[in-house]
Amino acid sequence: MNILLSTIGRRGYIADFFRKAGAAKIIGTTDRHGADTEFTVGLLSCDKKIILPPISSPDYINSLLELCKKEQVNLLCSLFDQDSYTISKNLDEFRNIGVIPLLPSEKANEICFDKVKTVQFLNKIGLGSPATFTTIESFNKSDIGFPVVVKPRNGFASLNMFFAKKEIELTGCFDSELHIIQEKLSGIEFSFDILNDLHGKVISCVVKQKIKMRAGETDQAITVKDDNLLEIAIRVGESMGDIGLCGPLDVDLFVTENQTYILEFNPRFGGGYPLSHAAGAKFPELMLDMAKGITPKSIVGQYQENLVMMKDVRAITISLDSISHDIKKFGTRANG
Amino acid sequence: MNILLSTIGRRGYIADFFRKAGAAKIIGTTDRHGADTEFTVGLLSCDKKIILPPISSPDYINSLLELCKKEQVNLLCSLFDQDSYTISKNLDEFRNIGVIPLLPSEKANEICFDKVKTVQFLNKIGLGSPATFTTIESFNKSDIGFPVVVKPRNGFASLNMFFAKKEIELTGCFDSELHIIQEKLSGIEFSFDILNDLHGKVISCVVKQKIKMRAGETDQAITVKDDNLLEIAIRVGESMGDIGLCGPLDVDLFVTENQTYILEFNPRFGGGYPLSHAAGAKFPELMLDMAKGITPKSIVGQYQENLVMMKDVRAITISLDSISHDIKKFGTRANG
Repeated sequence: MNILLSTIGRRGYIADFFRKAGAAKIIGTTDRHGADTEFTVGLLSCDKKIILPPISSPDYINSLLELCKKEQVNLLCSLFDQDSYTISKNLDEFRNIGVIPLLPSEKANEICFDKVKTVQFLNKIGLGSPATFTTIESFNKSDIGFPVVVKPRNGFASLNMFFAKKEIELTGCFDSELHIIQEKLSGIEFSFDILNDLHGKVISCVVKQKIKMRAGETDQAITVKDDNLLEIAIRVGESMGDIGLCGPLDVDLFVTENQTYILEFNPRFGGGYPLSHAAGAKFPELMLDMAKGITPKSIVGQYQENLVMMKDVRAITISLDSISHDIKKFGTRANG
Repeated sequence: MNILLSTIGRRGYIADFFRKAGAAKIIGTTDRHGADTEFTVGLLSCDKKIILPPISSPDYINSLLELCKKEQVNLLCSLFDQDSYTISKNLDEFRNIGVIPLLPSEKANEICFDKVKTVQFLNKIGLGSPATFTTIESFNKSDIGFPVVVKPRNGFASLNMFFAKKEIELTGCFDSELHIIQEKLSGIEFSFDILNDLHGKVISCVVKQKIKMRAGETDQAITVKDDNLLEIAIRVGESMGDIGLCGPLDVDLFVTENQTYILEFNPRFGGGYPLSHAAGAKFPELMLDMAKGITPKSIVGQYQENLVMMKDVRAITISLDSISHDIKKFGTRANG
């Protein structure tokens, strides 16, 4: 099985996990724009390192399709939300050339991308979410007090989020075209790593408690076993499965004394996946099975508890010359 | 030589570098408070893993002194600014028990800690710095326009920094008791890794160009050789040496078409040190020499250029039980 890890960024370990799970060839791509450059550990961990045209370019999808054909890709996976969103609008084109995209449907991506739609979706499936406002007026009319969280309405992950402690800070930073206002919750932070099969059924799921966050990412966490949370995770996963999410889903939540609040969905490998992997989540193995046409048996709840993860930041160094020789450009614009 | 790496946090690689440079025993500490917990990769990389009382506790310095005596520490180094600042007020107590602290003097720490003092210091030694204001009134009277950077006046590193694009954002976020306003520079970002000997003389220095930042830390960088920048680095290092800085110093700067602007000093191993190390900076080796009483020969300018660094984030996992057995508490409060 050949797997293409699109816009792999810093996630070299995902390539390593797929290699250990038996992938024959791993192709990594970068679009060299925005947050992604060709100097990434992710690319270095792949067998083929390819620079594609920018995700926003009209040539992007065609170049990715051509690359999939050329490298006989069986399984397509994306590590970057904006990329996943773009590909999800063209899933059938990949299926038509024999590629299995383990990616969310466009509809599932929209629910993850738009925080207001996330809240509406959670209401619909009967799960809690933070009180959310699209205007200062509606916030003022509510019984929610300061501090509040101001975050981009559209966007993945906790980027560009800030806390307003009083009215002047809120009016100073809130832009009604960009932002939403959410109540600031206090409680214990958890996350789920969920894997859906091609039919949207949850086949693997790990519950983790966050110990420490750093710059919006989980720095330290511990696996926990909790029947109530596992049940919520399955409900979330299968509800997203009903609207076409297959592949990995990362869910962030707060648990207070009385309630569980789902904060957000990231429809991809979460930044804390290595902990779930070490605890026995087996996403790459199960994903390769799906690519082979095998329907994997569910291993939900089968993982090691009380396993602690600490992120370890190391530096990879390489001379400029050897990088330049190793990375190939592919696609119309990138060749220009 | 035994070395104590105080509040080592995530910097496991620093312990590894000292081990390879020939350190006999490496003691790592955590104060378990604030940003630091006992679940750190740093501690795991040390031979002895010790929980001390909180840095802010009156027992902290005494506990650290006792630990130095017990473990026959030769060299003391801190990886966390607040910790370094606290220790720097008590350097003689460590010297009196035979420990060599490779740390800034209290005065040097104050200049690094207070951004207004940093600017005054730079003016005094004839180096450029961004236009800096302590009130909105003084900013309004100047010819500096938006956007501006609002950052804590007191504080190390680029934490809690934000950009104000217009007046309402500035008034919304600026607190005159906490913040300063600085002009937003555009140019190329560089940094220096400087090592001063015990007499405040620069003995190693690497110039790096930043390729990509991520959450205030250097994610990708490349070593460069530039006589002009190297000269500035030496001037900065020796000027800090004149006020008692020995040990490592990390300096951030912007270079525009016409001028060089020093942004800030971090008087410790910088987050990008692994690149300088790979390029030949040899800080641990030179620091161990100093602890042995050898005056190391300067290797300023002797490093590999065009070496590219990419940060690689991996996850270390360990069961909760084995962590708990491995880490020892030390000091009055921590034993309670």
